[in-house]
Amino acid sequence: MKKNKAFLIDPVELKQLQQHVYDANMLLYNYKLAIHTWGNVSAISKDRKYMVIKPSGVSYQAMQPTDMVAVDLDNNVIGGSLNPSSDTPTHTLLYKQDSRIQAIVHTHSPFAVAWAQAGSDIPALGTTHADNFYGAVPCARELSEQEINGDYEHNTGLVIIEHFQKNNIDFIATPATLVKERGPFCWSAKSATDAVNLALTLEEVAKMALYTKLINPLQKQANIFLQNKHYNRKHGKNAYYGQKK
Amino acid sequence: MKKNKAFLIDPVELKQLQQHVYDANMLLYNYKLAIHTWGNVSAISKDRKYMVIKPSGVSYQAMQPTDMVAVDLDNNVIGGSLNPSSDTPTHTLLYKQDSRIQAIVHTHSPFAVAWAQAGSDIPALGTTHADNFYGAVPCARELSEQEINGDYEHNTGLVIIEHFQKNNIDFIATPATLVKERGPFCWSAKSATDAVNLALTLEEVAKMALYTKLINPLQKQANIFLQNKHYNRKHGKNAYYGQKK
Amino acid sequence: MKKNKAFLIDPVELKQLQQHVYDANMLLYNYKLAIHTWGNVSAISKDRKYMVIKPSGVSYQAMQPTDMVAVDLDNNVIGGSLNPSSDTPTHTLLYKQDSRIQAIVHTHSPFAVAWAQAGSDIPALGTTHADNFYGAVPCARELSEQEINGDYEHNTGLVIIEHFQKNNIDFIATPATLVKERGPFCWSAKSATDAVNLALTLEEVAKMALYTKLINPLQKQANIFLQNKHYNRKHGKNAYYGQKK
Amino acid sequence: MKKNKAFLIDPVELKQLQQHVYDANMLLYNYKLAIHTWGNVSAISKDRKYMVIKPSGVSYQAMQPTDMVAVDLDNNVIGGSLNPSSDTPTHTLLYKQDSRIQAIVHTHSPFAVAWAQAGSDIPALGTTHADNFYGAVPCARELSEQEINGDYEHNTGLVIIEHFQKNNIDFIATPATLVKERGPFCWSAKSATDAVNLALTLEEVAKMALYTKLINPLQKQANIFLQNKHYNRKHGKNAYYGQKK
Repeated sequence: MKKNKAFLIDPVELKQLQQHVYDANMLLYNYKLAIHTWGNVSAISKDRKYMVIKPSGVSYQAMQPTDMVAVDLDNNVIGGSLNPSSDTPTHTLLYKQDSRIQAIVHTHSPFAVAWAQAGSDIPALGTTHADNFYGAVPCARELSEQEINGDYEHNTGLVIIEHFQKNNIDFIATPATLVKERGPFCWSAKSATDAVNLALTLEEVAKMALYTKLINPLQKQANIFLQNKHYNRKHGKNAYYGQKK
Repeated sequence: MKKNKAFLIDPVELKQLQQHVYDANMLLYNYKLAIHTWGNVSAISKDRKYMVIKPSGVSYQAMQPTDMVAVDLDNNVIGGSLNPSSDTPTHTLLYKQDSRIQAIVHTHSPFAVAWAQAGSDIPALGTTHADNFYGAVPCARELSEQEINGDYEHNTGLVIIEHFQKNNIDFIATPATLVKERGPFCWSAKSATDAVNLALTLEEVAKMALYTKLINPLQKQANIFLQNKHYNRKHGKNAYYGQKK
Repeated sequence: MKKNKAFLIDPVELKQLQQHVYDANMLLYNYKLAIHTWGNVSAISKDRKYMVIKPSGVSYQAMQPTDMVAVDLDNNVIGGSLNPSSDTPTHTLLYKQDSRIQAIVHTHSPFAVAWAQAGSDIPALGTTHADNFYGAVPCARELSEQEINGDYEHNTGLVIIEHFQKNNIDFIATPATLVKERGPFCWSAKSATDAVNLALTLEEVAKMALYTKLINPLQKQANIFLQNKHYNRKHGKNAYYGQKK
Repeated sequence: MKKNKAFLIDPVELKQLQQHVYDANMLLYNYKLAIHTWGNVSAISKDRKYMVIKPSGVSYQAMQPTDMVAVDLDNNVIGGSLNPSSDTPTHTLLYKQDSRIQAIVHTHSPFAVAWAQAGSDIPALGTTHADNFYGAVPCARELSEQEINGDYEHNTGLVIIEHFQKNNIDFIATPATLVKERGPFCWSAKSATDAVNLALTLEEVAKMALYTKLINPLQKQANIFLQNKHYNRKHGKNAYYGQKK
């Protein structure tokens, strides 16, 4: 464990965060969104000074809550004895970019990966999509040779941020992206559990979009008023879906 | 709970209806036709003065029978402490339209949603379809901007009814519809359990129809005599499928 | 139970056959080849004077072994208190046609149904197919209006037999057929368990064939020498697959 | 059991190898990569003088560890009372060809079979592929009539080796192949468990590749720098994926 003198970790919060991140990773596995050691879930601390993430290359069945790794936002391991996910710098960059993001998930779920491998946005073809993602789920551009052979995972985060900024996409209204020829990242302003639920939603939406294109290859995005209606009845100012909090 | 002086609720019937609707919602979940909080099942009381429906935005795993909400046919909550499904006005309108309907189901099951997103009827391509649905499962038209931004869920019901009336479709012979860019609604003249079983049948039929189109994109509807034979051996006057009642 | 004076039923054999047919029907259900009350399995008695089959319209979860119905080959119920499957006359005709057939299965499994709905043979595209079915799994022709509105289930059997005879297909070398716009029937010279295993194999082969066509729509049948090799190493005179019996 | 005087078998190692091969076969079954008696897993002894393999035509559910068959590299059974898998000569030839191979798996998993039936390589369309297989998973050529009707299983091995040699493919960098109109073989330099895990990975990759082609039929292989990056961060000299060993 590297020393980090810049801040103190509350051991109670760390333990809770490890349990929360462990549970969310196991939910990912139980949803069958990840096999073997694939995929990873992280969540950030309240002071946003460190995150906790799945260890690299460890199988879901073998993991324990204490195996979850604490990493500061400069990618230094500050808690835990294992290596963190190799995608750590992508996670930390996104946390630094938007302070509303509380948790991040990366999966290799097959329908979402297929859209990423085709280099295509997932178009908003209906209300299941619009209930959860405002507009298309974007596909970020290919990294250049220099970006790949340089600080690859950090650059992956930069390319995601570039795409959201260039296209004026709000990270919370559209809490997911595809990385070209790779796969999906999702995030949540609520919790790691919610981020994993979104990853399952994204896979369902990606599946429905593929099936729709097989019925009508020229299918365009859904009626924009319908998209707005569904997004707003769940997430808007006057949302009326769900229970009062 | 809002007061409703127009009629009295039999507390025994209410409790039975809550249990029945709860069981049917859980069957929907166990059939994997719904994830998260998606979808909803309702059933109507014997006097057709109120229905019981899934609460809005509550996960299947967290629900209890007493969480099922009683709503009169003007969409007033008359029993239960939770908000009813946001699709409540679509359900109540259908119950008012056809007094044979005893239960209604809405799902986001992916194959049926794909046909809805493509804005296409599910054609009757074989006997599995014809055993259960007379003719194509229709796809109702897109709502207008005014219909979406007005009383949306009520208008959704109106558009379904418009489609059935314009096309002389009998609600019981063809107990399902797609709503464009949205997904399926099914109903039953028997019970909520039967309506959920129909929702599973619809998903199977939607899957078979997509696979068939992938083998032969130009496939037309099945022989009309064969469709009639299968529909009638199960549902006609001289039906001989099944056991004597 | 109708009287049948032409022959006596051994009650021990009947009971064993009911158990065997029940187990095979439940295997069909557990393989997820049938939902609700769909599909049916039968097996014939040693003297080939009667068969035992699933009752009509009864759900798999509710069935008991004693619910299996005994029917003579003229379609008279001779044992059991329930109505036999409505497909009974198709089964009895096939048993009469080929005395090697010991058991028959009908399913609505979705990939096989899709080929039937497309009115297409399932081509022999590889060795998984050739290991089990000699040549394409044929799709029998559409029934005429007269055949449908006449003795439909009997005529379905006639159309299957017509197709096998016209095309010189051996019932045991190719133990399955599709009925156009309907679905598959399989049979076995061994047992009802084996017939259900074949129904699962057919569904796998139908799935592989569809996926193959999606990769290459023009894909032709596999090398005929390869087909013969695989069929014969399992079923030929000098078969060397499996264990000595 | 045939005698083999050329070498002695350590009974402890044999028993361990039988257990290991049994466990890996059962993993194949539990991953749903094999139904019925299909597929087979083998592993080689430390001295590379014999391998242990699944018996031919025995169902997974009926198998015991002691049923696993020991075979020398000339395909003589030297331990166990059952016939070995009919694919035995393909396995032994691959073990002799590359002394790094420790275990081999053959499956009929449907997406991988579909690519084999289409006679097509599985192109490297993204990082899930590149993480595990360097370049396309190749499809070996069709066997000639003479090769099929001669020593078929041995010739199958020869055709695989021919393809890898002609195309300068390294058996460990690309630990899988398709055999045309047949299906996949995978292998591992580590263990039978690892080989079965690769067979699952291959099926996922084959599925993703098909879905990708359905979105964009003209999709080309992924950026070569991205492929190299992902392959090398997991398997290269400076690999940083996973935990220190």
